[in-house]
Amino acid sequence: MLKQVGAFDSVPREDLIRRVDNLRGRMVGAGIDFALMVENVDRFYFAGTMQKGILVVPVDRDPLIFVEKGIERAVMETPLSLTPIGNIKEIKDILKDKNILQGTAGLELDVLPVSLFERLRRVIGFERYADVSETIKEVRAIKSPFELTQIHKSGEMLSHVFAKANDEVREGRTELEIDAALVAEGRKIGHQGLLRMRGINQEMMNLTVQAGYTGAITTLLDGPITGAGVTPALPQGSSFKQVERGIPVTIDYGGAYNGYITDETRSFVVGELQEVFKRPYEAARAIIDDVMTFARPGVDCTDIFAMAYSAAKKEHVEDYFLGHGEGKVAFIGHGIGLEINELPVITSRHHRILKEGMVFAFEPKFVVPSHGAIGIEVDFIVRPHGLERVTKNSIELVCL
Amino acid sequence: MLKQVGAFDSVPREDLIRRVDNLRGRMVGAGIDFALMVENVDRFYFAGTMQKGILVVPVDRDPLIFVEKGIERAVMETPLSLTPIGNIKEIKDILKDKNILQGTAGLELDVLPVSLFERLRRVIGFERYADVSETIKEVRAIKSPFELTQIHKSGEMLSHVFAKANDEVREGRTELEIDAALVAEGRKIGHQGLLRMRGINQEMMNLTVQAGYTGAITTLLDGPITGAGVTPALPQGSSFKQVERGIPVTIDYGGAYNGYITDETRSFVVGELQEVFKRPYEAARAIIDDVMTFARPGVDCTDIFAMAYSAAKKEHVEDYFLGHGEGKVAFIGHGIGLEINELPVITSRHHRILKEGMVFAFEPKFVVPSHGAIGIEVDFIVRPHGLERVTKNSIELVCL
Repeated sequence: MLKQVGAFDSVPREDLIRRVDNLRGRMVGAGIDFALMVENVDRFYFAGTMQKGILVVPVDRDPLIFVEKGIERAVMETPLSLTPIGNIKEIKDILKDKNILQGTAGLELDVLPVSLFERLRRVIGFERYADVSETIKEVRAIKSPFELTQIHKSGEMLSHVFAKANDEVREGRTELEIDAALVAEGRKIGHQGLLRMRGINQEMMNLTVQAGYTGAITTLLDGPITGAGVTPALPQGSSFKQVERGIPVTIDYGGAYNGYITDETRSFVVGELQEVFKRPYEAARAIIDDVMTFARPGVDCTDIFAMAYSAAKKEHVEDYFLGHGEGKVAFIGHGIGLEINELPVITSRHHRILKEGMVFAFEPKFVVPSHGAIGIEVDFIVRPHGLERVTKNSIELVCL
Repeated sequence: MLKQVGAFDSVPREDLIRRVDNLRGRMVGAGIDFALMVENVDRFYFAGTMQKGILVVPVDRDPLIFVEKGIERAVMETPLSLTPIGNIKEIKDILKDKNILQGTAGLELDVLPVSLFERLRRVIGFERYADVSETIKEVRAIKSPFELTQIHKSGEMLSHVFAKANDEVREGRTELEIDAALVAEGRKIGHQGLLRMRGINQEMMNLTVQAGYTGAITTLLDGPITGAGVTPALPQGSSFKQVERGIPVTIDYGGAYNGYITDETRSFVVGELQEVFKRPYEAARAIIDDVMTFARPGVDCTDIFAMAYSAAKKEHVEDYFLGHGEGKVAFIGHGIGLEINELPVITSRHHRILKEGMVFAFEPKFVVPSHGAIGIEVDFIVRPHGLERVTKNSIELVCL
């Protein structure tokens, strides 16, 4: 019944088991005896269902999936066995009976609110606790073949939307009109409706269009091009700014199929591109070529950042590289998966080593103060001998 | 420049001052000496800007707006003076110099993650702390005339979208096709793009269409009709289910203008409504009439709930009232404003008293197991002598 109205493959049992095993291996190193997860995405990743409840992963035995609401549906969604509960207070006795409540609890401290933490400590009761969120993020950073299939399908959705963009970008149209039409294109074919970004205050639009100086406005959002938005109450995204001849239009879209996000950007221009944007565009294009030659398992992410910066310098556009002024951001790439801010993060400071199975969005973008922005964003899978693109469509500037 | 591409009025200075004064009055009662806010919506509510930073409201002097990113924009957005900072570590000395760090800090413990809490305690340093979130919610529950104007504009957006719905609901169309078209209608005219729901794991779609048994599926989401969605990774919202003759289609939409959310539901049917849905619909309709006669300042919210339940009983549809089985929810109304889960909550248990200036969505909805759902949702403002609807359009079942 669910399958008929949805567009998804259930997470295979073997995948879930492997994920839990990977987590356990890292929990040993982190000195965590049992992980206690409440966040939707983490629970879905390890259990295959997101229905309301708590997931407990002891370091040395099977995970316990407790479901409080949406039980009937949870049973259809997860291939693992679950325990229905009426209230989270019931968990304490079950865990105690199994001798699980001893030692250090691993909690998602990066997202777990203080009041919920205090409630869990009161009703479940654990002696010591530690942060398990980094450990979870590291497990989630390496994608399985099943996950890569979902990411490819997400990429097909994204390519479908970008193919329509060529018809939607026209002189005089507002960013919002283009945004509305393209988001609808993705939704009709099964976009899940939302993109997820982990953490308090992190909000992500499905799509954002910038058609000039709105691309040069700096906001709270951590990204090189964030947009003006329509209100100080949600200061990011598309606005009523109209497309003008010669000024680039950037469209940044997130596909989302069966939980998995893809995140790419293309640039468009009506007529001939204004001079000031030409070198930045050439630099962005060169940086994409460079990363495809250079990046592979074993490469340090800071070296990728340095390579991109030197390419920007060669074109004398380093001042515009990844923003300008206080709006400059420190990263050129970010892991994608069930959330849009996964590992690895590609910056000048984080010495993370690329590994096979990582998937990241790479976004050389340039912001020309008061004028606008231009750039490209492409998703890559780290394969044994180099990078593989997730999508197959053109990344070139589209001249209309 | 921002104004040209946006659709908003800045929050008036007097409004911000009154909000802070109301908060301070309640802080005295709660034994809080200074509130330390990090959540975007709370900071926007009291400061008029959401740019990245921290807001400090001492009980006995002017608030301090610290902005870390988006400074240029924050200056345009808030009529109050702000302090740019490079890093939140700088706050400590500023507060110490002003003797503010003494006594009890009020923190948003309902949303503040443990790791951020620990960081704030380390870098800012406060002796005692208490939860200020309930206090903030109580202040935010009473809307000012400026806020009511924004809510009315949000309601106009919502009415525009529902007017288009009559053309979009057709036999054979999928929930997603209707969803995509209507969300686009709202976005084009300036919908801010997202609806906000406070708390971990709380996600809200801009719109959800249910066209049959998908309306009877129970999920993690706290609401009577939550939908199947397209994936277990986001198990709520519209799906590929098609509209069938005689089976009601519910459309639940959230307008969002300048931060302010409206939230209403209408029911549609192609052809003649199936018998099983007739009495539930009559009950929903009667409950709306009842609440408009009954509710006014001074009324206890549990009495509103009881009134609705007895109307459902009179029509012998109490088993379907607000869901069925474990999917039954406990509330029939919820406050709306900058977030969709504000005060008051109208349940059988919460003895909250209606006050002038409260705004809430009221949703008598009925779920017929395996068949589907039907209902109405209307937004009301609590005025001195009774309720006033936010929108003016028809709430009747639309027969197509």
